[in-house]
Amino acid sequence: MKNFADRLLGAVEDRRSHVVVGLDPDYSLLPPELRTLVPSQVADADALAECFDVFLRGILGAVAGIAVAVKPQLAYFEALGSAGYGLYERIVAEAREQGFLVIADAKRGDIGSTAEAYARAHLDVVGADAVTVNPWFGTDGIEPFILRTKDDGRGLFVLVKTSNPGSAEIQDLVLAAGGSPVFEHVAGLVDTWGVGAVGECGYSSVGAVVGATHPEQAARLRVAHPTTPFLVPGFGAQGAGPSQLSGIFDAGGTGAVVNSSRAILYAYRARGGDWRAAARDEAEEMRRALWAVAHGGGES
Amino acid sequence: MKNFADRLLGAVEDRRSHVVVGLDPDYSLLPPELRTLVPSQVADADALAECFDVFLRGILGAVAGIAVAVKPQLAYFEALGSAGYGLYERIVAEAREQGFLVIADAKRGDIGSTAEAYARAHLDVVGADAVTVNPWFGTDGIEPFILRTKDDGRGLFVLVKTSNPGSAEIQDLVLAAGGSPVFEHVAGLVDTWGVGAVGECGYSSVGAVVGATHPEQAARLRVAHPTTPFLVPGFGAQGAGPSQLSGIFDAGGTGAVVNSSRAILYAYRARGGDWRAAARDEAEEMRRALWAVAHGGGES
Repeated sequence: MKNFADRLLGAVEDRRSHVVVGLDPDYSLLPPELRTLVPSQVADADALAECFDVFLRGILGAVAGIAVAVKPQLAYFEALGSAGYGLYERIVAEAREQGFLVIADAKRGDIGSTAEAYARAHLDVVGADAVTVNPWFGTDGIEPFILRTKDDGRGLFVLVKTSNPGSAEIQDLVLAAGGSPVFEHVAGLVDTWGVGAVGECGYSSVGAVVGATHPEQAARLRVAHPTTPFLVPGFGAQGAGPSQLSGIFDAGGTGAVVNSSRAILYAYRARGGDWRAAARDEAEEMRRALWAVAHGGGES
Repeated sequence: MKNFADRLLGAVEDRRSHVVVGLDPDYSLLPPELRTLVPSQVADADALAECFDVFLRGILGAVAGIAVAVKPQLAYFEALGSAGYGLYERIVAEAREQGFLVIADAKRGDIGSTAEAYARAHLDVVGADAVTVNPWFGTDGIEPFILRTKDDGRGLFVLVKTSNPGSAEIQDLVLAAGGSPVFEHVAGLVDTWGVGAVGECGYSSVGAVVGATHPEQAARLRVAHPTTPFLVPGFGAQGAGPSQLSGIFDAGGTGAVVNSSRAILYAYRARGGDWRAAARDEAEEMRRALWAVAHGGGES
């Protein structure tokens, strides 16, 4: 199968879009027409999973042709127990069927033998195209994922600099050797892990998660790690706007994809009207804004 | 509900045991009498989950009264998809029913709002007593778990120094400030996170994962962090023996519990005989050895 980075950045060119839609289903935010459960059902995982199924299929249809990938956030599925896990499996299958790349936002990380089971679970069994991975365990916890970048054409995004306030507490600690922060050291490890996985596009299938909420650090990372594709969270509901993102793209306007979850999923709350149309309009607006920023404010 | 640390260390005293049995089901290692699937069924998640159900219930029965806790390793359940996730839910319920504490080895970690969904998933919905958590996101990724140490009596174990070889790559990096490694800094954060969760036993419900494979570092951490209970992996199949563990216990022989997974689950392979009896004998031998080490080589 084709290299993951080639598939991802090929889709960016084809759709003229850097948009990833995060799938974070939350019952309290669903459109009123889908919030039809009686109070006794709101604690019923199967009933909730059924609501989310309808909602997420609606979202997939709404952003078709606009988003290059969707990113199911595992936590929101696990919060419904096995009913939610089954929904995750179905939504991944449906999204792939519709031509989206799927990035399983699992943030798993463990010792080698266990990481192998996680890689199998999300890339082989569920069939996601890529998965987010925590670097805390070092190389042996990453290898099973790297292995699947070869013949299987899968990818991973390593958590280098996350979008949340607490990310500074460990990721920004300054190291004695070199005087650089921990996250920059991890970005260097990511380069090493990606050496054998570079595609025709010049990027590797071992990417990095770099929060949009840290624009200067992201821009520094972009320059220092020219073969590492970025998955950029923190756009939209988490506070970062398009102008903060100019530094995450390379000179060709590529090398990064940007996630937005709640701002697209629940766009009807700000925009009114049909929830699918609102999600589509929000995603399209984001697509145009990012395309312009990535290409120096020009074409959309 | 009673503080988690009090429940855990109370069970250590009651059972004169520091033993945690890791639940890592692996079809290829099951006793031959349970490996009855025809080749076409080995890829069938429901059939595998059914085998694992019989096996894990047998293990729970075998180590009853010996182990203080069981630690389902989520990766091995997720590798069976939703059938495996359902098995995880059933095994946690069964283990709690039988009087084990349950530590969900999920190693989750994410930004605050998502960490809340993970805490809900594993502590509220599945009902584990504690969960392992990755510190990479800092305080806001930990807070939802800490919140549940209060009225809900739940606990967490933060990954401070893991048992695998790659753990050195990030966890051992030396910091410019203070010249100490990253994992010691994280151990300091764990102290802070546990301040409001200290039980009558003097330990907090915010514990640390400290690998048995790093005995000197573990002993230093034990002295420096007297209110942090340790969950110690790496014993048995991963290579550490009882003599390496003397430094992880406090002067009273408590403050830590020790996990063994494969060496107990698949003890029949080395010991022969009935697989349940072999698991029980192996767990009892571990219990005696640890109790002796924790109490200065004396009583068992």
